Amino acid sequence: MTFDLLAQDPTTKARAGRLETAHGTIETPIFMPVGTAGTVKAVSQATLKEDVKAQIILGNTYHLYLRPGLEVLRAAGGLHKFNGWDRPILTDSGGYQVYSLSNTRKIKEEGVKFRSHIDGSSHLFSPEGVMDIQRVIGADIIMAFDECTPWPCEYDYAARSLDMTHRWLKRCIERFDSTEGLYGYQQTLFPIVQGSTFKDLRIKSAEFIAEQGREGNAIGGLSVGEPAELMYEMTELVCDILPKDKPRYLMGVGTPANILENIALGVDMFDCVMPTRNARNGMLFTTQGIMNVTNKKWSTDFSPIDPVLPGAASSFYSRAYLRHLFQCQEMLGPQIASAHNLAFYLWLVGEARKEIIAGTFGPWKERMVKQVMTRL
Amino acid sequence: MTFDLLAQDPTTKARAGRLETAHGTIETPIFMPVGTAGTVKAVSQATLKEDVKAQIILGNTYHLYLRPGLEVLRAAGGLHKFNGWDRPILTDSGGYQVYSLSNTRKIKEEGVKFRSHIDGSSHLFSPEGVMDIQRVIGADIIMAFDECTPWPCEYDYAARSLDMTHRWLKRCIERFDSTEGLYGYQQTLFPIVQGSTFKDLRIKSAEFIAEQGREGNAIGGLSVGEPAELMYEMTELVCDILPKDKPRYLMGVGTPANILENIALGVDMFDCVMPTRNARNGMLFTTQGIMNVTNKKWSTDFSPIDPVLPGAASSFYSRAYLRHLFQCQEMLGPQIASAHNLAFYLWLVGEARKEIIAGTFGPWKERMVKQVMTRL
Ligand SMILES: [Zn+2]
Ligand SMILES: [Zn+2]
Repeated sequence: MTFDLLAQDPTTKARAGRLETAHGTIETPIFMPVGTAGTVKAVSQATLKEDVKAQIILGNTYHLYLRPGLEVLRAAGGLHKFNGWDRPILTDSGGYQVYSLSNTRKIKEEGVKFRSHIDGSSHLFSPEGVMDIQRVIGADIIMAFDECTPWPCEYDYAARSLDMTHRWLKRCIERFDSTEGLYGYQQTLFPIVQGSTFKDLRIKSAEFIAEQGREGNAIGGLSVGEPAELMYEMTELVCDILPKDKPRYLMGVGTPANILENIALGVDMFDCVMPTRNARNGMLFTTQGIMNVTNKKWSTDFSPIDPVLPGAASSFYSRAYLRHLFQCQEMLGPQIASAHNLAFYLWLVGEARKEIIAGTFGPWKERMVKQVMTRL
Repeated sequence: MTFDLLAQDPTTKARAGRLETAHGTIETPIFMPVGTAGTVKAVSQATLKEDVKAQIILGNTYHLYLRPGLEVLRAAGGLHKFNGWDRPILTDSGGYQVYSLSNTRKIKEEGVKFRSHIDGSSHLFSPEGVMDIQRVIGADIIMAFDECTPWPCEYDYAARSLDMTHRWLKRCIERFDSTEGLYGYQQTLFPIVQGSTFKDLRIKSAEFIAEQGREGNAIGGLSVGEPAELMYEMTELVCDILPKDKPRYLMGVGTPANILENIALGVDMFDCVMPTRNARNGMLFTTQGIMNVTNKKWSTDFSPIDPVLPGAASSFYSRAYLRHLFQCQEMLGPQIASAHNLAFYLWLVGEARKEIIAGTFGPWKERMVKQVMTRL
């Protein structure tokens, strides 16, 4: 993987770059749609390419490990072959899901014992095991196995957890560097900065992560309930320490405003379930603001969902028709809304990139944060 | 509307024709995907055109009348404008749904009083009212308001019901012929042959319907639980009486084998919820036979769902991936399966048409009936 830093905004810390992977190019800043079980919920692979213009999607190691399982993924020749997505893929390490989804998890130095939320079966995720699993899945970018602390979190717990996450990272790197990709192309491992919302822990972690000299770095443990201002404070602190010439991935963030603010602080990559999850409830993000399409006020609004966006999901169907689909609980409702929201997120980061290259990101961002968060 | 009979098979009663409507051409024999509430469940309008190659879709008057309602449909400029489907649409008369879905219906000479299955509100469907409703919906082909008798049915009930259906038809015709389409294009009204599975009633009804001299005719009240042989007997009897130079639409039929057998008896048009409903349960119709894609045997079958069919839903995704989507209850599973099953149905009638034109439909049909009903 290579990363080229192409432009830096003069009035903020925003950057525009280009990431080259074995499965193609990613232009940063970028938003990565979440495809938990190897599918971005309700959006076909063709729609992801043509309408959404997704450049990279995520897969969740925890879900893929449980279903379809490693045997099927290995037999398929990896996730790209299995789901037909031939552009880049990133997998998380399963850490977050083990804590949030599984039953009776037990965190030890060795790793985490947990029971599947599907059938109750027992499993162990260790740093080494999770590297091996992500070798089988075959994502272009894979994540270190970490503990993602909840918020709020006691200082002592966060400090002890951080030390373990750092020890786990060393084990991840050792395993990753002593193994090869299974399918004839290179993968890359991103370490993750933790430390909850404690400045000294975040500084310590960012320095430790930077020292590892990996091809890209991630910031985890944010957007877990803390106030946005606290998130921005941590992001800025960490971005200032992480190397300039490597991409920075802020995990699990966030609203359109969160994304714009974090781009301004130096983040290059984002993922979040919000655009698809909210879409399934009829909540649309548009270039003009946020709308709840199930609201009666849209019942005779025959204008397109968002005429600014070129994708079919945004410009072909009317607001009235989409509202009707939600009223009738027709599957096409979530399908359209999910494709539209993702198309909006990709549009937003694409516009941000243009503004960074043009040197006008700062004032544009101030305006856009207000515009995209307006209630329609 | 015009209908041209282009070819007749030498060894069966199968026909190939062409129907011209205000919204385009329909090549018969044809299968019409069911779009109950103005959406073919889980299939986007683009997929219907590009993958499925649907030439005409159905809408259900009962559902559309209740939601989005006539006010919204009129404001939109009719269903074509509302859902963005610019090819032909056919609407049923709501008769069947009033009997099968609504609560506490009361059938009188005037019409049918019923309560909405959604909110319990009271409504009256009369022959005149249903014509007016279908004017507002604006389908290219609209159906007469009839009583669809259940099966089995007492002879006396079927006979009395048939007489009422015929009286209702006269009222439908009178209302339809004294009104105009609301949106600047012509609609056409198809009467419906009833008579349960009683030969004399079917003959009487077919003769009565033929006498009306409408541009097309329908056969209702079949595929409601009777044995297939009885259905074929009734279809043949009726097709032999209905005019040759008008299209014949067999309502609510059926399995791939049912469709092929009825084409052989002279039917030109079909609709059925089976391809989409079964798809949502993981049951696939393919060119090689029927498969339950949720079965474990497909978990590492990485071959396409059906390589014979050109559409993305059939040839892009593997059986193993589709099985995985159903295992995880991911929406993309029903989306792919629905598009595929419809593509198969459209392929089947398209192949039948080619065989009819080539004069080889008879032996092809014998072979295909076995092939498409094989359990894989
Ligand atoms: Zn998120
Ligand atoms: Zn049917």
